Amino acid sequence: MTFYTFSEKNLRHFTEQVFLKMGCPGQDAQLAADVLLRSDLRGIDSHGVARLSGYVRLWEKKRINATPNVRIVHETPTTATIDGDAGLGLVVAPFAMKVAIEKARTYGSGWVSVKNSNHFGIAGYHALMAVEQDMVGISMTNASPLVAPTYSSERLLGTNPMCYAFPAGAYPPVVVDMATAAAANGKLEIAQRSGQAIPGGWVQDSQGQTSTDPHQLKQGGSLLPLGSDKDHGSHKGYGLGATVDILSAVLSGANYGPWVPPFVAFLEPSTHPVGEGIGHFLGAMRVDGFRPLEDFKSHMDNWISRFKSAATVDPDKKVVIPGEPEYAFEGERIREGIPLIDAVVKDLNELAVKLGIEGLN
Amino acid sequence: MTFYTFSEKNLRHFTEQVFLKMGCPGQDAQLAADVLLRSDLRGIDSHGVARLSGYVRLWEKKRINATPNVRIVHETPTTATIDGDAGLGLVVAPFAMKVAIEKARTYGSGWVSVKNSNHFGIAGYHALMAVEQDMVGISMTNASPLVAPTYSSERLLGTNPMCYAFPAGAYPPVVVDMATAAAANGKLEIAQRSGQAIPGGWVQDSQGQTSTDPHQLKQGGSLLPLGSDKDHGSHKGYGLGATVDILSAVLSGANYGPWVPPFVAFLEPSTHPVGEGIGHFLGAMRVDGFRPLEDFKSHMDNWISRFKSAATVDPDKKVVIPGEPEYAFEGERIREGIPLIDAVVKDLNELAVKLGIEGLN
Repeated sequence: MTFYTFSEKNLRHFTEQVFLKMGCPGQDAQLAADVLLRSDLRGIDSHGVARLSGYVRLWEKKRINATPNVRIVHETPTTATIDGDAGLGLVVAPFAMKVAIEKARTYGSGWVSVKNSNHFGIAGYHALMAVEQDMVGISMTNASPLVAPTYSSERLLGTNPMCYAFPAGAYPPVVVDMATAAAANGKLEIAQRSGQAIPGGWVQDSQGQTSTDPHQLKQGGSLLPLGSDKDHGSHKGYGLGATVDILSAVLSGANYGPWVPPFVAFLEPSTHPVGEGIGHFLGAMRVDGFRPLEDFKSHMDNWISRFKSAATVDPDKKVVIPGEPEYAFEGERIREGIPLIDAVVKDLNELAVKLGIEGLN
Repeated sequence: MTFYTFSEKNLRHFTEQVFLKMGCPGQDAQLAADVLLRSDLRGIDSHGVARLSGYVRLWEKKRINATPNVRIVHETPTTATIDGDAGLGLVVAPFAMKVAIEKARTYGSGWVSVKNSNHFGIAGYHALMAVEQDMVGISMTNASPLVAPTYSSERLLGTNPMCYAFPAGAYPPVVVDMATAAAANGKLEIAQRSGQAIPGGWVQDSQGQTSTDPHQLKQGGSLLPLGSDKDHGSHKGYGLGATVDILSAVLSGANYGPWVPPFVAFLEPSTHPVGEGIGHFLGAMRVDGFRPLEDFKSHMDNWISRFKSAATVDPDKKVVIPGEPEYAFEGERIREGIPLIDAVVKDLNELAVKLGIEGLN
């Protein structure tokens, strides 16, 4: 595996050109590129520009609308449902979070459920929009079914991530951004490429037997919920995945469970959908709706510093504050550039040829 | 182990008498008894009357105030912070949830963070208060430190449960009510009594080595976060526990992390607290703030029926809908009574003698 490193600026320009070629308005192209770049900057390589050609393929299949009329279809002072009009989730979710933030500014909190959307990138991007306004940020999305509930051999839930983000004072924000499966699909893909066995408890085969073969997922198997098996609390991971599914889709009118349309363009969506597109759920709460901001921030700093100084099992492995590694990556990659594996560079350059834009170099 | 079965009515009367003897006003005694009875009815034996003598011991130590002045100390239209005045969490949390529900009735949603409280019983009780009003209910609490974050040998978080509850139509509500540790302390206590080994991944010893000895927790060991180890996502369980801690306590001004006062009266609270008492977080969102209630309920029923009919690994183990077993218990125990183990009956009868009330029989 060879890595090539690109500056943030070059990769951002390239990504914007791709979205512009899809027909996205300039502002949307910039925003969508920003969401993907933020993922690469934060070290979440699986959700950044590596997915760009996937979005293009969905657009080619007319499953992504490059010029959506994103709009509020139902609301109260602090809740809203948004119809994404089949737009890029990368554009729809920030729109929805802005609505949540505006409601929070006026009433203390704002909550938005979204239907008729597509993959929204990293959950952390959207939650951090609220943190920048000194609010608690919450974001979730459902996703193509890959995870089997406890006791089932069927894929009925996506890896359905949830994110909670909190501003701090001297420290960077605390960002809990996690898939509700035991292991992310990205980790599986790495094992597939390297041909290595995976730990038991990540996947089961099509019969529901646990397996260490990373290829089982592509042969009818499933990812397992966080907790891995009943004895270790997989019913909790399943419950969290269900919570994300219900808040994102049953509440908004999107597809849920096994009906969620697949991200990959070569798999067709259900011919009997139960809703529209995929669903997200976004929330914002003003910190000073609960206590003075400076009090909260100083106690957050105390929380963080206490956890950072916790006694460790292995002297070489410190306790990690949620969001800390991503923050460190972001600083480093802004300075030193973003490394992409050769397969991704090849894919992006093929995309450039297809769309008639300048490739990466 | 011998079980004795008591009618709900008798056990409720007994429990109310105990709270009255503590000096709780009549309404508070009724409410506190209702929270504990609901736990026993729902089959969560570890959080019901089995804890009654624990509350009394905390009251004897003057760590629980039987006549608190529970009040809102900070608010916006949809957020509030409540000072529980060291009252029973069993009384303070329902007060807070009523505030959240009233705010939701007017503005669509309501969110309350609580400080200076005590153990609030089962999270599900409070979340279900919102469900009865056709709202989504959310409840969380922090708790005495028993769980070590990933890579640490120190107990820094409680089992910090989170609950999300949703109304359905023909089916009972979906109630995701879960500790963020791999295994609840109650399961450990069962293994301690029976002297049986526990599965690896539930606890670690004082050095941070995983152990199958259920007694390790009482010898300086820790519970492990949901996910059990880093490879299986324990950083996610740790992140969820941290989220509960921050929403419940850093937001409200309660104690957090290792400073949370212990539930057991023989352990003294920190002499350098960072806040007041323990913290909770409660929320309510009107379903019809997002879509018409009947649409939501019919899709919830469709969600539930699809998951209930999922293909199973073992023909004898159906996929369980979150909250379904507790609902079944509740129906059965209302009809047939509540079984208590002999050790709990003995403990309650000793309590009756101490307080000068009629014992159970």
